[in-house]
Amino acid sequence: MNTLEKPYVVGIDIGGQTTKMGIVDMRGQVLAQTVIRTDTHDDVNLYIDDLSAALEKIISESDSDEKIRGIGVGAPNANYYTGNIESAVNIVWGGNRTIPFAKLLSEKAGGLPVALTNDANAAAVGEMTYGAARGMKNFIMITLGTGVGSGIVINGEVVYGHDGFAGELGHTCAVRHNGRLCNCGKTGCLETYASAIGVARTAREWLEMSDEPSSLRSLDNISSKDVYDAAKEGDKFALKIFEFTGKILGQSFADFVAFSAPEAIVLFGGLARAKEYLYQPIMDSMNANLLPLWRDKIKIVFSQLKESDAAILGASALAWEL
Amino acid sequence: MNTLEKPYVVGIDIGGQTTKMGIVDMRGQVLAQTVIRTDTHDDVNLYIDDLSAALEKIISESDSDEKIRGIGVGAPNANYYTGNIESAVNIVWGGNRTIPFAKLLSEKAGGLPVALTNDANAAAVGEMTYGAARGMKNFIMITLGTGVGSGIVINGEVVYGHDGFAGELGHTCAVRHNGRLCNCGKTGCLETYASAIGVARTAREWLEMSDEPSSLRSLDNISSKDVYDAAKEGDKFALKIFEFTGKILGQSFADFVAFSAPEAIVLFGGLARAKEYLYQPIMDSMNANLLPLWRDKIKIVFSQLKESDAAILGASALAWEL
Repeated sequence: MNTLEKPYVVGIDIGGQTTKMGIVDMRGQVLAQTVIRTDTHDDVNLYIDDLSAALEKIISESDSDEKIRGIGVGAPNANYYTGNIESAVNIVWGGNRTIPFAKLLSEKAGGLPVALTNDANAAAVGEMTYGAARGMKNFIMITLGTGVGSGIVINGEVVYGHDGFAGELGHTCAVRHNGRLCNCGKTGCLETYASAIGVARTAREWLEMSDEPSSLRSLDNISSKDVYDAAKEGDKFALKIFEFTGKILGQSFADFVAFSAPEAIVLFGGLARAKEYLYQPIMDSMNANLLPLWRDKIKIVFSQLKESDAAILGASALAWEL
Repeated sequence: MNTLEKPYVVGIDIGGQTTKMGIVDMRGQVLAQTVIRTDTHDDVNLYIDDLSAALEKIISESDSDEKIRGIGVGAPNANYYTGNIESAVNIVWGGNRTIPFAKLLSEKAGGLPVALTNDANAAAVGEMTYGAARGMKNFIMITLGTGVGSGIVINGEVVYGHDGFAGELGHTCAVRHNGRLCNCGKTGCLETYASAIGVARTAREWLEMSDEPSSLRSLDNISSKDVYDAAKEGDKFALKIFEFTGKILGQSFADFVAFSAPEAIVLFGGLARAKEYLYQPIMDSMNANLLPLWRDKIKIVFSQLKESDAAILGASALAWEL
């Protein structure tokens, strides 16, 4: 296939509630995009019918019929090697099944090639193709969203490992002693501290443990957004929560660096918006925990992709490599 | 170069005290080997004179002149990308200098290509070429010696990272809270618990802290070998030390698996000889700390290379890839 003849790719980001998709060019411009619900059908074939109908619509709108090289999909529990979605319990048509998603979608899309990976790996490829990691061959993408995801790039390639599931850094141990219980069943996972949910959890725990004044005390169901807003207002308690979160992240990042010696760690996701409060604590804590040879040499960079487009861009970037 | 015409490689393992070298065939047979002192000269050129004289001798003894494809070198602080040995403070001719070792040796060896890496990476390549990791494309080599070294293989290639120094897993944090002080200046490094020195340190600490009877109490300067010997005699205190060491290793291994999803973790080095006491605690602790998707799926295997040859074999294996 020739790049000039087929200058576009499709990116599809599948979440538990909604599925975003778009047509993307080589520069990372989203020509057209749309959203459907993920949770309407518990039969994956009916879901794929919806998906391809929505896709046909934006393809025709953007006049890109016959110009699509391939389709990239970011989805939970997606296996790059097999093209399967495996035991995706957070998706209604997922459950405990193994779904040959790439195959099903490719058939429905007239044989277009389909590549599939999890959202954090897709974000890493997106950042390498269009964003902050352009030109980098060794970096680690950390997505700070509801959970903590990761995509590891070594020598210009995403690390999938022996089974296709490498890069679960959100479930490395950040706190060994009396660590928080994680959804995965383990305790002390990085994700329980450094995700949006983790930050809210820190706020609630600390409010209970101390008498320190904070505007957060007046709120009922504290979210990470509330902590961010309070920090913006200069609330010292909220600022300390970000310091703590950054410290935990930096400690873990130092161990990640010891593994793959990346040029940079790239941060993305809702919580990464708090970069003015996270950057310095992360840097200080990472450097304090790095071997001397890496001290002050590893960059922390924040995603440059427009957040509304990022999920689509990440998924779409996979399709260039097909 | 043709494999049949040039069927041998040279492996050189540089330690602080001695340098071992040998001629190796494709099956990992060591045809001839010898040892020189590393610490006789503080000028690297004089050291390389010694080295090449010793090398010429075993080449002529084994009748392998003109049959050598290349030279692989395992050395501390060796950078695979540059061929330099950088700030190797434990080598008399090392110091704080950057030594273009591959270049110097290649010139002295009539232009034979020379590849250089640290000993743990060399061990990983050796294990992949001749040993327990043959046929594996994704594994992590952990060397349990005086310290803890590591070589990470992803997609059949050693991970060197952005700067050539990836794979310092001995200096990831095993104990965050009140961790032991490491030679590197950090605290809690895996190496301070799971190396030969770490095991001896555990023995001394525990003997002081408890009154539990143990044959180790009668010894003056306890080594990991003493702990091993005591365990062999059924000493419960010594057995508990290995249980603890295995638990710490397993916890760390679980985090390494979350990074690169290897097929196996391969153990090598003096302390790995205690496999009958380490295997089960490592397995139990690793599985307890793995995400469910990896539980009971990651192998722990012990090196199959003859220990007296292993350092030479590891270094030599690098040369096949030249």
